[in-house]
Amino acid sequence: MASLLRAAATLGLFPRRGYCSRGAQLSLPWCPWDSVGGNTEGELSKGFVEALKAVVGSSHVSTAAAHREQHGHDESMHRCQPPDAVVWPQNVEQVSQLAALCYSQGVPIIPFGTGTGLEGGVCAVQGGVCINLTHMDRILKLNPEDFSVVVEPGVTRKALNTYLRDSGLWFPVDPGADASLCGMVATGASGTNAVRYGTMRDNVLNLEVVLPGGRLLHTAGLGRHFRKSAAGYNLTGLFVGSEGTLGLITAATLRLHPVPEATVAATCAFPSVQAAVDTTVHILQAAVPVARIEFLDEVMMDACNRHSQLNCPVAPTLFLEFHGSEQTLAEQIQRAEEIAGHNGASLFSWAKEAEERRRLWAARHSAWYAALALRPGCKGYSTDVCVPISRLPEILVQTKEDLKASGLTGTIVGHVGDGNFHCILLVDPEDTEEVRRVMAFGEQLGRRALALHGTCTGEHGIGLGKQQLLQEEVGAVGMETMRQLKAMLDPQGLMNPGKVL
Amino acid sequence: MASLLRAAATLGLFPRRGYCSRGAQLSLPWCPWDSVGGNTEGELSKGFVEALKAVVGSSHVSTAAAHREQHGHDESMHRCQPPDAVVWPQNVEQVSQLAALCYSQGVPIIPFGTGTGLEGGVCAVQGGVCINLTHMDRILKLNPEDFSVVVEPGVTRKALNTYLRDSGLWFPVDPGADASLCGMVATGASGTNAVRYGTMRDNVLNLEVVLPGGRLLHTAGLGRHFRKSAAGYNLTGLFVGSEGTLGLITAATLRLHPVPEATVAATCAFPSVQAAVDTTVHILQAAVPVARIEFLDEVMMDACNRHSQLNCPVAPTLFLEFHGSEQTLAEQIQRAEEIAGHNGASLFSWAKEAEERRRLWAARHSAWYAALALRPGCKGYSTDVCVPISRLPEILVQTKEDLKASGLTGTIVGHVGDGNFHCILLVDPEDTEEVRRVMAFGEQLGRRALALHGTCTGEHGIGLGKQQLLQEEVGAVGMETMRQLKAMLDPQGLMNPGKVL
Repeated sequence: MASLLRAAATLGLFPRRGYCSRGAQLSLPWCPWDSVGGNTEGELSKGFVEALKAVVGSSHVSTAAAHREQHGHDESMHRCQPPDAVVWPQNVEQVSQLAALCYSQGVPIIPFGTGTGLEGGVCAVQGGVCINLTHMDRILKLNPEDFSVVVEPGVTRKALNTYLRDSGLWFPVDPGADASLCGMVATGASGTNAVRYGTMRDNVLNLEVVLPGGRLLHTAGLGRHFRKSAAGYNLTGLFVGSEGTLGLITAATLRLHPVPEATVAATCAFPSVQAAVDTTVHILQAAVPVARIEFLDEVMMDACNRHSQLNCPVAPTLFLEFHGSEQTLAEQIQRAEEIAGHNGASLFSWAKEAEERRRLWAARHSAWYAALALRPGCKGYSTDVCVPISRLPEILVQTKEDLKASGLTGTIVGHVGDGNFHCILLVDPEDTEEVRRVMAFGEQLGRRALALHGTCTGEHGIGLGKQQLLQEEVGAVGMETMRQLKAMLDPQGLMNPGKVL
Repeated sequence: MASLLRAAATLGLFPRRGYCSRGAQLSLPWCPWDSVGGNTEGELSKGFVEALKAVVGSSHVSTAAAHREQHGHDESMHRCQPPDAVVWPQNVEQVSQLAALCYSQGVPIIPFGTGTGLEGGVCAVQGGVCINLTHMDRILKLNPEDFSVVVEPGVTRKALNTYLRDSGLWFPVDPGADASLCGMVATGASGTNAVRYGTMRDNVLNLEVVLPGGRLLHTAGLGRHFRKSAAGYNLTGLFVGSEGTLGLITAATLRLHPVPEATVAATCAFPSVQAAVDTTVHILQAAVPVARIEFLDEVMMDACNRHSQLNCPVAPTLFLEFHGSEQTLAEQIQRAEEIAGHNGASLFSWAKEAEERRRLWAARHSAWYAALALRPGCKGYSTDVCVPISRLPEILVQTKEDLKASGLTGTIVGHVGDGNFHCILLVDPEDTEEVRRVMAFGEQLGRRALALHGTCTGEHGIGLGKQQLLQEEVGAVGMETMRQLKAMLDPQGLMNPGKVL
């Protein structure tokens, strides 16, 4: 009977929430949804919660409102949609058992890392069980000679780099937030540094994934950490950027890089957006191996000055960083200065000392909060388009004009070396008209990027808000192929439902 | 009736070859296999061949034995298994129609580029139609400012780099052979240069793929060529390395790189295999951005000396290449020399002039033919394991000993910067006992690499010969996931059947 019901659920014959109330006499000790009391919200039944506790221990399961609220949203303006329960597994066996339990009972599963996403990726749109993976935070194996490390899902970017401090190695992918590394895998994150070191797609060697039914997949084979392979289909690549919709990532083997011998950072103010972006394009074309090249418009620069006590000119600005030996750095800097000067840059300010550099990048990485501080009490909405670099000047100039014309409060900041930039728009979530205008602005910008052969999301993912744009981006056959992939790995549609597709 | 038969074929209810002879009265003007004359080999029927001609024109279809033989093998020792027909489509619409035609009739489809593969990837193990894509050889669009280019499947690596000669850009992935770029995509090729510029996996931005039924998929959306994206599942990555088993690649958008300002190559002889490999590991650990670092054992070096009229010492040797500005080159060279000297290298010979470098790398890239020349009339079999770099010394030293003990003739050459190396074993294909020993040697080496957390194939692919090793490498769940992917995209199992899985 249970398997029949499960099959029926697979076929979508009845809605997932509250199916017990449809009168079926399950041959189960409990039913996952508590609808006896007429709770149409479909709270989890006591029996199911007990089953969760049996897997992870009582103290690692919560149905408290505070916990559920806390896990129902990320840092975006997507409204909180709390799960029915939050569980904190301690190891992969427990994750596997949880997945098997939820899947067998038709209960949605939402993986949770640090909750620092920007596309509503953790909102429990159909309720279900949020699996918070932060208790699994061990660094399982460092292979310094092979430039690789294996981390559990709770290890954050900063925790890893602290651990690596004396090894001569580091993990360069840096989205700003101290996100969990497996969350970064799930989002396909990148951020500053990607222009030189690549995105998560380029820096994941192997993944351990708990598939929806509970089985364990090692995408490149158990324990393997080679640099390259042509052995069968690229399963690792399939899970990077899958946003928790195909499985739970329970360990990642990451590629590490040697710490550069020397590092120099700089800021440089420009007379116009065009001049700053032209400089970026020319630096890349001159093959200067710049490590970071970030653009901030004058509104963003002003906000960062205030929020992080900087003293930069309020103008379109590039933040740059160069990595290398002392000798090669001098050469990189000289070339960058020549190119910037040629484009009318006036003030080139160098930060060679670690503390000075740290302050500069802390300011850049606080851009989100600096922008939020422009309108206290408001929420932020960040666009995330990425275009071919040659189209960057026109789209940035046009976006700047649109922003002025819209009357919205917003800043522009971005990883212009990749063609990726963000408008951080401030919005009063209670003002539905303003919310509508912000969403319309984001959609218009997304369509403009698509028209320039770009993508609607360079690094934040599709999540809840960009599903229409994804369809326009990849077309009917692309969407159908993605839907087939989803159905193949998650036939019941229980893995982080409502996201991506 | 036809669709019923097709459905039955999908379910595997009768064998694919010769199903017309099972007495079914098809409502088709012709039957794909000619079995009226009792030809159990299942030659294609006249009607089906006429249908192929109607798509591509009479002059672009051949069932001549010479053409079929020529398309039934690659450069490996896998025996020739000719297709039933060879067609040369002129454009993607024709490829799409061919795929639809073959698929609807249960006829296997084998994509064919330059036939330079090393794993039997083009052998028509179930007969069928070989689709030779070399007539589609246009460079569709160069985007110099965005460092990208769109090529049709017939464009080879050398043709592209010749085309790019005056653009300041180049495509660095270099497997030695002048392979077609889309063939390199299908194989997940790499070769020299990968240590610095990555493999095909890292250098493909978008693909146009004709799916088995004839529909057209643009893996990153039509015309898109951004540097990074987090938009949905990574479909591009799914097709890179799929060895023609999921669809026909009819265009690739590739990432280009700026031509380095200066280039220096060098050869360096070592007292032992261990010393040469230790040098490699130390150069990488010192973060010297070496562009190529290739190992040749003394047998390989001797063969190259003879075949390419070089005059290198007959000893374990590294071929190196450095890219950069004049200034950074000097620094790289100095560090490499220090490290090599520290490991007992005696003779460092520098090639700064283009002609001298060209001769050196031509010799390295002729290693396969140089090895074949050691036993004229024999075939070559190349192993292709790749291990974490720290395990490279032990596996190379051990393999060298095994090779001596085996009594087989073989050389060792490899892209040691990636942990990837090849044993090129010479074998008389008529000597079944020797063939058996060669295969056993390859399998033993594959298992040794797996035991060291490596892969059975760094760049040649699985093809016909490594299917058992693939199973051992990725495990049961990995294999099942790959099989699901295959069944999802190619439910009838007609795309290059018998390969990978």
